[in-house]
Amino acid sequence: MANSKYAYVKSFEVEERILPEVWIVVRLDGRCFSRFAEEHRLQKPNDERCLRLMEHSARKVLESFDDCFLAYGQSDEFSFVLRKQTNIFNRRKSKILSCVVSLFSSSFVFHWKTFFEDTELQYPPTFDGRVVVYPSEQTLRDYLSWRQVDCHINNQYNTCFWLLVQNGATPKEAYETLKGTLSDFKNELLFQKFGINYAHLEARFRKGSTLFKKAREDSLHSSKTTGYEIILTHEDIIHDAFWDQHRELLDSSVGRKKSR
Amino acid sequence: MANSKYAYVKSFEVEERILPEVWIVVRLDGRCFSRFAEEHRLQKPNDERCLRLMEHSARKVLESFDDCFLAYGQSDEFSFVLRKQTNIFNRRKSKILSCVVSLFSSSFVFHWKTFFEDTELQYPPTFDGRVVVYPSEQTLRDYLSWRQVDCHINNQYNTCFWLLVQNGATPKEAYETLKGTLSDFKNELLFQKFGINYAHLEARFRKGSTLFKKAREDSLHSSKTTGYEIILTHEDIIHDAFWDQHRELLDSSVGRKKSR
Amino acid sequence: MANSKYAYVKSFEVEERILPEVWIVVRLDGRCFSRFAEEHRLQKPNDERCLRLMEHSARKVLESFDDCFLAYGQSDEFSFVLRKQTNIFNRRKSKILSCVVSLFSSSFVFHWKTFFEDTELQYPPTFDGRVVVYPSEQTLRDYLSWRQVDCHINNQYNTCFWLLVQNGATPKEAYETLKGTLSDFKNELLFQKFGINYAHLEARFRKGSTLFKKAREDSLHSSKTTGYEIILTHEDIIHDAFWDQHRELLDSSVGRKKSR
Amino acid sequence: MANSKYAYVKSFEVEERILPEVWIVVRLDGRCFSRFAEEHRLQKPNDERCLRLMEHSARKVLESFDDCFLAYGQSDEFSFVLRKQTNIFNRRKSKILSCVVSLFSSSFVFHWKTFFEDTELQYPPTFDGRVVVYPSEQTLRDYLSWRQVDCHINNQYNTCFWLLVQNGATPKEAYETLKGTLSDFKNELLFQKFGINYAHLEARFRKGSTLFKKAREDSLHSSKTTGYEIILTHEDIIHDAFWDQHRELLDSSVGRKKSR
Repeated sequence: MANSKYAYVKSFEVEERILPEVWIVVRLDGRCFSRFAEEHRLQKPNDERCLRLMEHSARKVLESFDDCFLAYGQSDEFSFVLRKQTNIFNRRKSKILSCVVSLFSSSFVFHWKTFFEDTELQYPPTFDGRVVVYPSEQTLRDYLSWRQVDCHINNQYNTCFWLLVQNGATPKEAYETLKGTLSDFKNELLFQKFGINYAHLEARFRKGSTLFKKAREDSLHSSKTTGYEIILTHEDIIHDAFWDQHRELLDSSVGRKKSR
Repeated sequence: MANSKYAYVKSFEVEERILPEVWIVVRLDGRCFSRFAEEHRLQKPNDERCLRLMEHSARKVLESFDDCFLAYGQSDEFSFVLRKQTNIFNRRKSKILSCVVSLFSSSFVFHWKTFFEDTELQYPPTFDGRVVVYPSEQTLRDYLSWRQVDCHINNQYNTCFWLLVQNGATPKEAYETLKGTLSDFKNELLFQKFGINYAHLEARFRKGSTLFKKAREDSLHSSKTTGYEIILTHEDIIHDAFWDQHRELLDSSVGRKKSR
Repeated sequence: MANSKYAYVKSFEVEERILPEVWIVVRLDGRCFSRFAEEHRLQKPNDERCLRLMEHSARKVLESFDDCFLAYGQSDEFSFVLRKQTNIFNRRKSKILSCVVSLFSSSFVFHWKTFFEDTELQYPPTFDGRVVVYPSEQTLRDYLSWRQVDCHINNQYNTCFWLLVQNGATPKEAYETLKGTLSDFKNELLFQKFGINYAHLEARFRKGSTLFKKAREDSLHSSKTTGYEIILTHEDIIHDAFWDQHRELLDSSVGRKKSR
Repeated sequence: MANSKYAYVKSFEVEERILPEVWIVVRLDGRCFSRFAEEHRLQKPNDERCLRLMEHSARKVLESFDDCFLAYGQSDEFSFVLRKQTNIFNRRKSKILSCVVSLFSSSFVFHWKTFFEDTELQYPPTFDGRVVVYPSEQTLRDYLSWRQVDCHINNQYNTCFWLLVQNGATPKEAYETLKGTLSDFKNELLFQKFGINYAHLEARFRKGSTLFKKAREDSLHSSKTTGYEIILTHEDIIHDAFWDQHRELLDSSVGRKKSR
């Protein structure tokens, strides 16, 4: 066959397979999203339409990949967690990464109109992505806690910053006011100056968005694609309560048996 | 800072950097595109609207990444070639892969309407991607030849197959007619049975689509973003003629000096 | 400095770091050791001198690398297990692999005379090596069980094979006699034909060699280098008894605290 | 088979294969060799016995691996270069690295007595190793130049340092005298103070040791193992002369044909 003369170039392809029995996390981030936020006049410090579009795009990823059981997002980032026993794409790293990022990106554009009725999408956005693996329940939960703490810190800062700016401070002044201050100071500032109890702000802004799969209780059929529903929550996922309540998310006993 | 307790999880991130001084190819492929073709009633054996949309999305990638100087596409795949001296994203593999795939995917959806006036996009498509590197001019050119030969073989087969089917054969009969036949047989079949000279079919279908950057001759300014234009061609890129005519594409002397 | 013109070549070096919090196993194997066995007239099916030399070389590795807490060997192979919290060589894979293999190899030659009094070493042997990581206690123990089962299967076969050959069978006949037979058949053969109770053969041959570190009970000082002794045993390490007795080997609570 | 229950652990093994068509360099370094030098009272600034033992051990590696065509060493390090078309061990990185390091280490111990007649080896030494790949003739030659420049810089410095110390300076004084000085200053110092013309010192010390394979001219037979001889030289390998004279070393036309 004519092709065979060149087919040797395929030997340059390297398929990196992810270690078995570790949780796989794909995290994606908006590229140059501060420019994107400006050009689309996104609301500060949070644009609920954009957060809901991110959540919806994440939902499409969860629907498309059976072994993706949980996603956590905040701001312009989203992390997807795959079961540690997953054999999706034979655990080929590039394929997992590219498919998740691609579907999220195309969904974001596809569903834009649903969330941004009066604002046209100006240009196609880009999300970058990476794969990280975690070998134990503790390290995986610490990863998710890391992202939720990050959400809290950024949101508290941004809430203060934009209130100061919207009330007459220059960005530089707002920056100087907040520089080096602790969490308590910012809470106090919000309360004293703006009469805002931080804890009463929208959970979506303070805690980010967690989507996870839950088996339908009335499900007699075992169909993988319809046997669960996808729950959206803005709860704390740092403490044990969430994980105790949804013990099946990290419990891998079924999967472990299958993998032998 | 509250974050530090969990920040150790960042140490699980691994940044794979691509070897210096090798050409970087990112190839992406439509995932489950036979289903996609059916649901959008794409024309057989080639849908020009879809090919033009692919080309346009590829153009957006070339515009966005300065060091991507050439792209070659056919069917539902596209390969992007980055200069071997590129330092984009510090040559981090995951970042390069995800950004290219993401922008291509979101562009495909964003520009759909321009190419498919009467057909609604039914759902967001997914493209998977991979990174392959080539250490020499010869191996890089052989890679591109491999893809263009693949285009030829598939297009010739598909042209015969769909003409047979559109003229009354069942898919199974068409398959049996073509099984194991050589290129000459298929050319003869096209000519004898359908009066078609394969060499006269559209070059886009036979040769695929090559996009490459060309410095503007009237360009006095050295601005990277406006100093070139992107040329689309459906030429042969297997033989030397194309490369002789566009010697600057593979000539890396400028870049080599910079890298020291 | 004169060196700087060429120093860019250092950027081609890639340091692969091993994922944190997973057990690291370095397994090495004698290369072309059937030829080595012949040229040094090693005893069949087991040469105790060689096994003791292997054990002694493994001991040198354990002494040299603090975080290597256990080694298991059989025939011409040895596996070394490093604590999952180890930060040796910043977990650089090539450095860990090469140092273990190098020290084992040079020790094997250095201590040869101690174990082979009447046999000269004819040429320097080569051991190849690989690094494998295991993310959980279960997978690590399964790895070690895999090697000890392998020891049993090979030793039982080789014991039968060489007894048959030493009692007049040709190698081909011995091979045919044993082909496809189960464990029980071989035990029966040993007992019926040669009056040998397999379970009474030397544990070193049947179970391989496990070396592990044990904290000295009388150790008041906390010196890492003298606070433990290295125990050699030929016990079963598949079942729980060994691990229950030496709970500290896999218990990583101390290390886990340190790693935060 | 009893083994199958645990055999799944083999899936945790990852075989990294080296990119085709790039030169493979394995560089090894003595670990903690300043202590080794002290304990074996090696001569300063260079111990010819040790350099000859290093060369001899390198020769054993060249003899053992057909596709290793050149080695360059200085001080306690040695670099081995494999043909870019080599398919040794299917280009598995760990296997190549470990076998080279292992054989070098065991040879160093095995042949110690030949070079150190009056000095007993006190303990088995360790060499660490790494694999680096170079995609072009230029980058490979620059790598070797980098090492030979390093040899020159270190040797010039050490020659001055030890002459100062052997003539009554304290190590601290010698260090202060040389700190920040250029090459010319050191040459002047050697000449003025010690009457030494640096260029007349032994080439082995100034240029390091290059071993390479040369086809025997009288070789009618094509046997790979006897068709060449290994040449040792202490020439300059930075400039073109050496490579022009031994054009076949980098000329890969034969290999390239084979690889298709």
